[in-house]
Amino acid sequence: MSQTSTRQIFDRPSSLADRFAATRAVMEGLLEPLSEADATIQSMEDASPAKWHAAHTTWFWETFLLRDHVPGYRLFDERWPFLFNSYYEAEGERIMRGNRGLVTRPTLSQVLEWRAHVNEAMQPLMADERCTDLIELGIAHEQQHIELLLTDIKHAFSRNPLGPAIWDRQPKARPAQQDGWIEHPGGIARVGHQSDGFAFDNEGPAHRVLLEPFALSRRLVTNGEWAQFIADGGYKDHRLWLSDAWAWLDRCNISAPLYWREGEHFTHAGWQERDPDAPVSHISYYEADAFASWAGCRLPTEFEWEAVARGQDAPETDQRFDAAAGNQLDTAAPPLPVGTGELFGDVWQFTRSGYLPYPRFKPAEGAVGEYNGKFMAGQWVLKGASCVTVRGHSRASYRNFFYPQQRWQFTGLRLAKDL
Amino acid sequence: MSQTSTRQIFDRPSSLADRFAATRAVMEGLLEPLSEADATIQSMEDASPAKWHAAHTTWFWETFLLRDHVPGYRLFDERWPFLFNSYYEAEGERIMRGNRGLVTRPTLSQVLEWRAHVNEAMQPLMADERCTDLIELGIAHEQQHIELLLTDIKHAFSRNPLGPAIWDRQPKARPAQQDGWIEHPGGIARVGHQSDGFAFDNEGPAHRVLLEPFALSRRLVTNGEWAQFIADGGYKDHRLWLSDAWAWLDRCNISAPLYWREGEHFTHAGWQERDPDAPVSHISYYEADAFASWAGCRLPTEFEWEAVARGQDAPETDQRFDAAAGNQLDTAAPPLPVGTGELFGDVWQFTRSGYLPYPRFKPAEGAVGEYNGKFMAGQWVLKGASCVTVRGHSRASYRNFFYPQQRWQFTGLRLAKDL
Amino acid sequence: MSQTSTRQIFDRPSSLADRFAATRAVMEGLLEPLSEADATIQSMEDASPAKWHAAHTTWFWETFLLRDHVPGYRLFDERWPFLFNSYYEAEGERIMRGNRGLVTRPTLSQVLEWRAHVNEAMQPLMADERCTDLIELGIAHEQQHIELLLTDIKHAFSRNPLGPAIWDRQPKARPAQQDGWIEHPGGIARVGHQSDGFAFDNEGPAHRVLLEPFALSRRLVTNGEWAQFIADGGYKDHRLWLSDAWAWLDRCNISAPLYWREGEHFTHAGWQERDPDAPVSHISYYEADAFASWAGCRLPTEFEWEAVARGQDAPETDQRFDAAAGNQLDTAAPPLPVGTGELFGDVWQFTRSGYLPYPRFKPAEGAVGEYNGKFMAGQWVLKGASCVTVRGHSRASYRNFFYPQQRWQFTGLRLAKDL
Amino acid sequence: MSQTSTRQIFDRPSSLADRFAATRAVMEGLLEPLSEADATIQSMEDASPAKWHAAHTTWFWETFLLRDHVPGYRLFDERWPFLFNSYYEAEGERIMRGNRGLVTRPTLSQVLEWRAHVNEAMQPLMADERCTDLIELGIAHEQQHIELLLTDIKHAFSRNPLGPAIWDRQPKARPAQQDGWIEHPGGIARVGHQSDGFAFDNEGPAHRVLLEPFALSRRLVTNGEWAQFIADGGYKDHRLWLSDAWAWLDRCNISAPLYWREGEHFTHAGWQERDPDAPVSHISYYEADAFASWAGCRLPTEFEWEAVARGQDAPETDQRFDAAAGNQLDTAAPPLPVGTGELFGDVWQFTRSGYLPYPRFKPAEGAVGEYNGKFMAGQWVLKGASCVTVRGHSRASYRNFFYPQQRWQFTGLRLAKDL
Repeated sequence: MSQTSTRQIFDRPSSLADRFAATRAVMEGLLEPLSEADATIQSMEDASPAKWHAAHTTWFWETFLLRDHVPGYRLFDERWPFLFNSYYEAEGERIMRGNRGLVTRPTLSQVLEWRAHVNEAMQPLMADERCTDLIELGIAHEQQHIELLLTDIKHAFSRNPLGPAIWDRQPKARPAQQDGWIEHPGGIARVGHQSDGFAFDNEGPAHRVLLEPFALSRRLVTNGEWAQFIADGGYKDHRLWLSDAWAWLDRCNISAPLYWREGEHFTHAGWQERDPDAPVSHISYYEADAFASWAGCRLPTEFEWEAVARGQDAPETDQRFDAAAGNQLDTAAPPLPVGTGELFGDVWQFTRSGYLPYPRFKPAEGAVGEYNGKFMAGQWVLKGASCVTVRGHSRASYRNFFYPQQRWQFTGLRLAKDL
Repeated sequence: MSQTSTRQIFDRPSSLADRFAATRAVMEGLLEPLSEADATIQSMEDASPAKWHAAHTTWFWETFLLRDHVPGYRLFDERWPFLFNSYYEAEGERIMRGNRGLVTRPTLSQVLEWRAHVNEAMQPLMADERCTDLIELGIAHEQQHIELLLTDIKHAFSRNPLGPAIWDRQPKARPAQQDGWIEHPGGIARVGHQSDGFAFDNEGPAHRVLLEPFALSRRLVTNGEWAQFIADGGYKDHRLWLSDAWAWLDRCNISAPLYWREGEHFTHAGWQERDPDAPVSHISYYEADAFASWAGCRLPTEFEWEAVARGQDAPETDQRFDAAAGNQLDTAAPPLPVGTGELFGDVWQFTRSGYLPYPRFKPAEGAVGEYNGKFMAGQWVLKGASCVTVRGHSRASYRNFFYPQQRWQFTGLRLAKDL
Repeated sequence: MSQTSTRQIFDRPSSLADRFAATRAVMEGLLEPLSEADATIQSMEDASPAKWHAAHTTWFWETFLLRDHVPGYRLFDERWPFLFNSYYEAEGERIMRGNRGLVTRPTLSQVLEWRAHVNEAMQPLMADERCTDLIELGIAHEQQHIELLLTDIKHAFSRNPLGPAIWDRQPKARPAQQDGWIEHPGGIARVGHQSDGFAFDNEGPAHRVLLEPFALSRRLVTNGEWAQFIADGGYKDHRLWLSDAWAWLDRCNISAPLYWREGEHFTHAGWQERDPDAPVSHISYYEADAFASWAGCRLPTEFEWEAVARGQDAPETDQRFDAAAGNQLDTAAPPLPVGTGELFGDVWQFTRSGYLPYPRFKPAEGAVGEYNGKFMAGQWVLKGASCVTVRGHSRASYRNFFYPQQRWQFTGLRLAKDL
Repeated sequence: MSQTSTRQIFDRPSSLADRFAATRAVMEGLLEPLSEADATIQSMEDASPAKWHAAHTTWFWETFLLRDHVPGYRLFDERWPFLFNSYYEAEGERIMRGNRGLVTRPTLSQVLEWRAHVNEAMQPLMADERCTDLIELGIAHEQQHIELLLTDIKHAFSRNPLGPAIWDRQPKARPAQQDGWIEHPGGIARVGHQSDGFAFDNEGPAHRVLLEPFALSRRLVTNGEWAQFIADGGYKDHRLWLSDAWAWLDRCNISAPLYWREGEHFTHAGWQERDPDAPVSHISYYEADAFASWAGCRLPTEFEWEAVARGQDAPETDQRFDAAAGNQLDTAAPPLPVGTGELFGDVWQFTRSGYLPYPRFKPAEGAVGEYNGKFMAGQWVLKGASCVTVRGHSRASYRNFFYPQQRWQFTGLRLAKDL
């Protein structure tokens, strides 16, 4: 499948089979520049090897679709579920998360054979309506792992003292962000997933919330503004920081976003000069919250953000240039995903909302029910999308979530204030 | 001051000076049965020594009232603020939290001298209207530390393999809890502190929230029900547990509430038989959430709880018997605080609400602004009061908060469900 | 028993009963200035509470003498062995070492009652020859715990930011150390315990070793020399340090002996000015080894040290002034133990000998066999005695032992060199 | 170079250049069956990636020979010393040991290019007598890393839940071990390196020691005997264990040698049935010491072992079959190193001697002086050689050393007893 067709598929409504094929192809394309070793190592417990992502997503299809819905289907290798189940307790024992980087066998080419085998075996199910919802889930799942593969491999390369590049840098002009505030009068808003399209279970049920009048910034906080925050002693002023955050700064010796050193930051293209006008990225909730205090503002709630974004749900139109990745990934070749709009591009945006269940939320039955609900403690909701989110994966009701100290995703912030 | 007068003071509106004196006297009364060693040790980082509570509360008065508002006041001992500041960054360096139990000097009697000195020095400020709000805060602060002293000393005694008693047990008849559900139609509710009386900054600003129809149980979950949960394999069924909770069970080897062993639990009166009809206590958020799932219900939000409790704000009427402490503390002598009502007694009740700022919340200026706001991350709101909460300290808007794994407070749960 | 008689007893041969009584009295005397809290806390896992020492030594008598040798003896309290057994696996389960500081009950006065009870009950055994060896062992054991009590309480007080004193300082004149080297021609030497008197099992069997010609310094390294080592960048020059030591310096942020700050060091009399001519103390093996390298010398082996000291075995003559404690403890009142000679005073002296079994060494049968042998791994032999070693406790064959990073004992060094 | 010639070179005296070439070729041959990923990962901090061994040994030649002795030599890549210096402080900063497995770039083929480049550049130095000692050291150094590569890759494969094989198993007949004891009358023995040939600095200076009469077993302890030790409750009887060992058993949950499961053990050929007559391997000092106690014997001292082995110094004669590796590695192809005799084959043998400096030991000047001396603390001497020691690398004075809990080397034991 050519790159052009991949983009066309994500740009417009297309068949389930096409979207399945395109999603699988994107991940396989990302593996191309990686050596067997690049694809195997694990640089921290939060991150997984690229090969593991390629295999885990295949395990997902083989387990929840082929095994459960194709009579007589035989597993490609019976020993592999132990290696590539992520966290589904209902699917049994599995390798400890921190040991994923020790699995040099099966090799990358064996995993790619498995992918081809599963891609083929999945074809008959595309027309089976009983499987449609699960296939949609599988596509969304694999799209999430495409984003994780990109952030995980970036982290792995960043730990190499030589700071090697995965892709060459192809600088592009970047349109300036628009200043100003989007005002909202408050009142009762309906939030959560409301259309017929696919959504994760944690995006529903749709329900009403009461908002006070507020304003949301038209633009993301930039590298240049963050440099001012640092220069102003932001990381040294306890009054700006949550108590847990202050202890984290000290324990982990934090004084800048992840991947910063002097005037540079680490990107998929190695160490590059920072663009002061580009959105800041790779910050934690703790840092986002402190910056907002320093700026005399606050973070939006997830509902405020969604109320503003509602008109832009399922963004499929023009994408603007995504610069948060710093290396300004070429979207032509290899097939790299990019953000698609004002609110839905560049970086995930922290909200001040804890990741909690919506009223009347019930996880699905069975192993698939472990997808979202069991993580509803101690994490924070992020909205939008990032420069490495697959096109078509984002929507206004989407709820991403991370722990308050995590920084290896493309995470940034958009300010809010009371009116 | 006699015990009778203490109770009368907390039972009805009384002067600031009287409430100051009564609060100070309660803590001093609690120290009486403790040896110098009992009052000095620290059994874990979360807990503080009894002597430290006695000193820290005195430091609070000396720092924020006497030092800041009495011209020419000289500190009782200039070296002590380093020892007895808890977490106020604006007040400078202080002893590491985990080292509080190493401070054998000053002695307990020196700390009691300090208390007497400060009690005396505070008198002129009682009539100074500019100080009223700070004095109210100081009283509420000391009442919180009275509760902490009681839970911390219980923890310390529980770590002694001999399981010694602090107070004798005085069994009392306990009225049965009333079954059934309190239904609420939902709609817009006004929450947060709204009266003229004292409240902490985190209880405001008052604001509107939108509720869906729900029901709240009339009673607390009991020891007997918890035993059923255990017998039913509750601690071994991953489907009931949050992901972080499941890891916590394994890491800390948890299979019952804190202080349970066979048919007994540890109390201020040592190891005692458990009453199956008494409210379960010393459970974590993780356990409360899992139990609620097992029971086919859920935890209430903090706003649902408050909407039901609103009519009972500032409970001052008859108290019912508090049994959660297990030792059924005698409220006569020594002067022990007790809970005061259906919703406001026995145990703090976990909600499913993360501890986050209310709309337009702003912490106070200066060191006192560190009181609540900086803890708004990673903790959960608890409502009500416990059997060791001082009379008059509770109200419907009160927001207590703890991390999801903490169990040494008198924490329990009251179920909720959607209508 | 008066202080004068205590000293007389240790100064000359005296009866078993007298030495038992004197040893017990020394520990009880040391407890006098301590508050209940001082005696209860534990400042680190290596150290034990003073009350614990008082109780553990009593447990030793009650277990190995009274229980095993007095028909019908009933334990003072059956629950206490769990609390006060140190490490004797053969004696069953016991409290975790790190929890010794949480035992506020039994109280100090209950422990003192126990001591009195056991002292009385022991009297009939004094004349029982079958018990003589065990009683000698018990006396030596209690003398070791007297030294530990003194070093442990010093550590505990050092952790108090106020740096309180236990005893007043009584400065005394201190004779200068004598310079020069004691030369030894090498050859076959007989080492290990050889007299009829008491010795620990690890001091034997006596055996022959072959020595090369060497010289041992007449004096101990001083505070002043150590300050020169620091000024010369000794702690920053990797060439002087063992690999494990260099990692330890970095991990624990070490740049001076324990208890040093600027021109002062912490003593039993609080923070005091350091005497540059006094022996340096509270150093680790790692530091002793690095200093010796810096000085162009080396540490002696345990056999070299013993060969020189042999003539001074069982030192009982005049004691010289011990200054290593820094506070120059008054030996008059309270009854404080002191060192007794050139080689046997001030500080324990590190050797370059690992703590290993002598040829044909066999631990005793039963629980008492756990006394020494099971610690023969990873520790280093120290020779001599310190300013807080009880008179009469030291001898040339004595083998003290500690891990290479431990510093809370009175540990110093005496240089050696090859001839 | 063919395999045959490699063996011939190690079997008889040969030129420096030949031995350099043969040593380099052995390591390169070992890399052949490894994937890029196999060669890159690091399975624990003690172990290093295979690629790292290939690169580090090359760094050694480039640094200490080419850079220091070839005027105008330019480093192959100036950034690589940071990656491949192991622990030489004098050579500056380097990557943290635990991060060696994150270096996917340079690739394996780049490292092999570097090896070829350095092999070529070294040729002119072979005839330079000033370099001979350093080249001998470099060869011995690379031979040590060949052994480490083999034990490290075995560990890495063992962590893969699939237990993959690196080499196929080629079973061979194994001559039975000879029973009985070698008696030694004791007396003065000369130990340490005494010939003209190469030895590490830690093997000297040669010196005299005094031995008591003893006997050394003719054979190694076997898997079958170890199984008896387990069946007899050896791992559960505290009386057999050092105190540190007992804590280690509990902390690490140890109940068998490393790589054992039921009747199998993990080998370079994957999981294989254990041969009860083969020497036990992959045990710690702690376990060796406990086993010796259980057997009513003890471990030999390093000097006892050496006194017996002296006649067999520089063993070059017939090798017997090495079975400790369990997979019975084929010595034909690829070029795999094997042990060479009774005392010098199968497994390294723990002694009861701490790894300490010999009398008058002085490390070399400069960075090379960091080779051995700085590790003389906390480790134990092992004598002999193992089934993965390169032919010609072993000699009677050789002192291998490991920490008492380490088990991933081919470590076993040979019993000794007093006469």
